[in-house]
Amino acid sequence: MQPAHGKADEIRTIAAVLFAKKGFSAVGVAELGDAVGLGRGALYHHIKSKDDLLYDISSGYVQLIIDEGRRISQSYAEPEAKIHHLSRSFVRVIFEHLPEMTVCFREIHALTGKRHEIVSQLHSDYEEIWENAIAEGTEKGVFRSVSKIAIKGLMGMYLHSFLWLKPDGPLTHEEVADTFSEIVLKALKISAQVSA
Amino acid sequence: MQPAHGKADEIRTIAAVLFAKKGFSAVGVAELGDAVGLGRGALYHHIKSKDDLLYDISSGYVQLIIDEGRRISQSYAEPEAKIHHLSRSFVRVIFEHLPEMTVCFREIHALTGKRHEIVSQLHSDYEEIWENAIAEGTEKGVFRSVSKIAIKGLMGMYLHSFLWLKPDGPLTHEEVADTFSEIVLKALKISAQVSA
Repeated sequence: MQPAHGKADEIRTIAAVLFAKKGFSAVGVAELGDAVGLGRGALYHHIKSKDDLLYDISSGYVQLIIDEGRRISQSYAEPEAKIHHLSRSFVRVIFEHLPEMTVCFREIHALTGKRHEIVSQLHSDYEEIWENAIAEGTEKGVFRSVSKIAIKGLMGMYLHSFLWLKPDGPLTHEEVADTFSEIVLKALKISAQVSA
Repeated sequence: MQPAHGKADEIRTIAAVLFAKKGFSAVGVAELGDAVGLGRGALYHHIKSKDDLLYDISSGYVQLIIDEGRRISQSYAEPEAKIHHLSRSFVRVIFEHLPEMTVCFREIHALTGKRHEIVSQLHSDYEEIWENAIAEGTEKGVFRSVSKIAIKGLMGMYLHSFLWLKPDGPLTHEEVADTFSEIVLKALKISAQVSA
């Protein structure tokens, strides 16, 4: 997704909610235009096509956690702190992009050729940030060495949560993130502490 | 899903593959009939409607892990053994139902009213089997007490895996299951063992 620039960003957000609610193929350009208060011509001034919109929606939140993840990886040297902050960033972005994730996971098969590959690659890039953080912990003797499957499993814990997370529920995204990072750290730490 | 009874079961399996590949709404009754080698009349002898088929596909694998989960819960008293066998059953059923899970998670919004509720309830019923197994471990002083969110997170690790598991890949379902149950047990056990 391009950096936020007003109307195009608003269109993506509104489109994500519409696509999540009705399905990508069920929403026509006319309905989308009505929802954002623009005629067909004005709408096409901001977006190239519905397919472009699907791509932007499906890739935007992943690009965001990648950017944040890279900053976090450079900002914290200590492996546990890195995992804690990656977890906070991951869950916050999920909380803030539930419709986008619904659209991405439900409609990604509708993305054609290269675009499908790019979105898959973005997911791999983000996974790599966690892989590197865990590998650093292993090198420092803090974490056990784990397989790629274990890391994919832990990422799945986060990624699946868009299906049940409720931003208006009783828990904040920080509380969910800390519950998840506690699981990750207990699963990884070599010398786990005894706690009740 | 009803117990296996030949042709109806075969139709569900073939339909799940077709729906996963092309999308539920894109597959017509004629195409489905061709795929299973039946004319419209003969097809409708085995299934009531495409909607019924979607419901059967979306609920069948969940009913299966519920049935297996209840048997496992009764068969093993030791909390760690229970988690290990629940994990084995869960991943094996996922391995064997990738198209069904693709259809369930992508098309569940197409299920109307009561059917949507029933499939959601089945997922809750299965979650409860894990909740009870973990609560027993907590009562026995083997596992720490964890929140419902932690359990939903751990279940998500399994449920998300249908998106990347490859039954023809290098790992068996037992190896994946044991990687996952190791994560669950390390996350839960009060006195975690030091291991490299």
